Amino acid sequence: MHRSEPIRIGLLGRGKIGTGVLKLMRQNRDMLANKLGAPLELAGVADKIVAPDPSIGLTAALITPDPAALVARPDIDIIIELFGGHEPARTLLLKALAAGKDVVSANKAMLSEHAGTIFLAAERAGRAVGFEASVGGGIPIIRTLSQALVADRQRSVHGIVNGTCNFILTTMSEHAVDFGDALKDAQRDGLAEANPILDIDGHDAAHKLCLLVTLAFGVLLKPAQVHTEGISGVTQADIAYARDLGYAIKLLAIAKDDDGRIEARVHPTMVPRRHLLAFVGGAFNAIYINGEALGSSMYYGLGAGQMPTATAVLADVMEIARERLAARDGKSARRHPLGFPLRSIKNARVKPMDDVVCEYYLRFMAADKPGVLGAIASVLGRNAISIASVIQQGRDAERTVPIVMRSHQARERNLKRALAAIRQRRLVSEAPAFIRIEENL
Amino acid sequence: MHRSEPIRIGLLGRGKIGTGVLKLMRQNRDMLANKLGAPLELAGVADKIVAPDPSIGLTAALITPDPAALVARPDIDIIIELFGGHEPARTLLLKALAAGKDVVSANKAMLSEHAGTIFLAAERAGRAVGFEASVGGGIPIIRTLSQALVADRQRSVHGIVNGTCNFILTTMSEHAVDFGDALKDAQRDGLAEANPILDIDGHDAAHKLCLLVTLAFGVLLKPAQVHTEGISGVTQADIAYARDLGYAIKLLAIAKDDDGRIEARVHPTMVPRRHLLAFVGGAFNAIYINGEALGSSMYYGLGAGQMPTATAVLADVMEIARERLAARDGKSARRHPLGFPLRSIKNARVKPMDDVVCEYYLRFMAADKPGVLGAIASVLGRNAISIASVIQQGRDAERTVPIVMRSHQARERNLKRALAAIRQRRLVSEAPAFIRIEENL
Repeated sequence: MHRSEPIRIGLLGRGKIGTGVLKLMRQNRDMLANKLGAPLELAGVADKIVAPDPSIGLTAALITPDPAALVARPDIDIIIELFGGHEPARTLLLKALAAGKDVVSANKAMLSEHAGTIFLAAERAGRAVGFEASVGGGIPIIRTLSQALVADRQRSVHGIVNGTCNFILTTMSEHAVDFGDALKDAQRDGLAEANPILDIDGHDAAHKLCLLVTLAFGVLLKPAQVHTEGISGVTQADIAYARDLGYAIKLLAIAKDDDGRIEARVHPTMVPRRHLLAFVGGAFNAIYINGEALGSSMYYGLGAGQMPTATAVLADVMEIARERLAARDGKSARRHPLGFPLRSIKNARVKPMDDVVCEYYLRFMAADKPGVLGAIASVLGRNAISIASVIQQGRDAERTVPIVMRSHQARERNLKRALAAIRQRRLVSEAPAFIRIEENL
Repeated sequence: MHRSEPIRIGLLGRGKIGTGVLKLMRQNRDMLANKLGAPLELAGVADKIVAPDPSIGLTAALITPDPAALVARPDIDIIIELFGGHEPARTLLLKALAAGKDVVSANKAMLSEHAGTIFLAAERAGRAVGFEASVGGGIPIIRTLSQALVADRQRSVHGIVNGTCNFILTTMSEHAVDFGDALKDAQRDGLAEANPILDIDGHDAAHKLCLLVTLAFGVLLKPAQVHTEGISGVTQADIAYARDLGYAIKLLAIAKDDDGRIEARVHPTMVPRRHLLAFVGGAFNAIYINGEALGSSMYYGLGAGQMPTATAVLADVMEIARERLAARDGKSARRHPLGFPLRSIKNARVKPMDDVVCEYYLRFMAADKPGVLGAIASVLGRNAISIASVIQQGRDAERTVPIVMRSHQARERNLKRALAAIRQRRLVSEAPAFIRIEENL
């Protein structure tokens, strides 16, 4: 395959997410290069401490304590900003844009406060700002709102966008513990910061809501304009009463367009227990959108964490890299329709159905006589199918009754053979019914 | 704002979806032109019957019975193919690509069978194929797999991708009716074709699975290679037993990468009742993906229908139009980071929190004395807050007890005023707790 010169990446900050990005770049290096048609290359990392890590390709020579020097380097194409916080992140991004670099950032606190400045600077410089990782971690909500839903008018956005709060509320609801204990659980599991105030008080969700509002409704909103309440006041009693009334309590980031006036608020909210958002548990995030033409849609996934967030950062890097490569060749950036060059595409090697392994639900219609269940079970056993549970209902000597079983994992070939043998031995009055179970999905 | 020459669209087929596309183009004309920086213009429609419809901008002069002539017209930029079926759709798309047009299609039957031909022809011609509408209707699963998840390796895909089957299975499960009656319900509600075989037998889901496999695993798969079973054999008894065993029955399109061998199958499947996929009801679709770095994510929405599908078609049109405009100006297609030009962005007009209207959960800690509930209720009433339900538990003359209420829709300003009055009148022993309810989301 024709290979272009590499796309060179500068990384600001190598905390948890930065390390995840480097890990993923290294782990999937060939796949990424194939999809892009050029390698991604780490050109430098700005970090206070020079702590090389060869396992992720980080040599001492790559590390600099001077981020301003890194964003000025003429050999770097894309700057990934993972410092967090307002400064120096804001100034560095503006410098990078002015120096002709594209930027990728996960910094919702800074972007929500300075959206106008950053995005306008990018537009004036003709450069890109990727910020998929800033809301919903690995959930592609930024490109969904800016691209997929571009032809529709959005009515409302309801987001579970803070995994820490959702974990705490889920724990309080499922284990009947108080807020304080649930917070300790979250901290023990690494799902809450040592200082969890920004999460617990709803401010992190408010930052994300500002970006969602700008994408959904096309206007700028500052975090201070969002009515923000946290979850520390939610009691066990309220959760129990909510359940009685048919609701679950979630910290929602809510935005609605009320005839040009934007309603934007973050607070503990009761949602109907049968609504899909009520089933978004643990540290998961979900953004539920109502559009005029599309109706309801929801986007669900891990909203934080090293590797999920790294996938979002690298998705932005890949998209921008493709645009830069096209511009180098003087072409417009035609996206490959499948996300990778087709020249070398192969036909699938298909696994035969007989080799598929899963659990099975089995229903046999059999005469209600002693020994029938045993005879069926022994045929199954001879074919390496073991039974996880049996339901045999009622007794009725006059007619056939259903024998229902759930199998452990078995191979389709063995199941087919066993069912044929059971029919042949006339243990059943009709063809056995079976339905495959996907247990671990 | 600077306006470019229009992007000119040719439409093949004006059935339900085609009409939806024209409707949306007209309804959101200004919004689309603003986002794009140029108007979208309907240049012609190929249809057997010349039936003008001024309400969607369709004059007799725009309609031609000759689709081959339409795809050859030099003034057209983008061809939208909504004929469905293998021919003449396939030949027309290839002709359009050869004539330098970009194409957008919702035709999963043809694309899944001829993916190699169509996508390679597009790549060779340097043109785009948009096919977001072919899988999951308005759910942006195509661009999610090809762009958002580009840096990750996918492990498995589990999709509810046929709304007709999901509606039937949901109806069977919720109303304890048999397959035949549920099918009649679906047909009555317009959710199943008069000839529903392609849906019911799982072939439509298999077509979609082929496209998902190509996007997720980078290989070509033909519908004939997918093990495909439909839902007509699912009985009411199986659904009931499934429930007893802790499962729901869904028609799933399943694909896994087993060390380079692709497992691809469509069949009725039992999924754990607490799994998010089990809650995808009615005509909704959802695609659940497991990735190595991202973990689980799910994309949920209406998988069919006129307007949801039209949003996906127009999202592709907008993206391609942007690339064409950039190429005209000799620039690379830099996407606007927010999906629209920023020059004219405004600050949000924010609705004051006091004006927000919602339902409220209210908890008062009050002395367990006669008259207290009445006094609280009358203060609420005077402030235009009406009570939907009350939970008052136990009796305990010694201490305060919780009085829990759910209000009807009320204005935040009124609620705050009422709660202040209740405190001032010392009807409660501590500040009333309230949680907002989002009932209609």
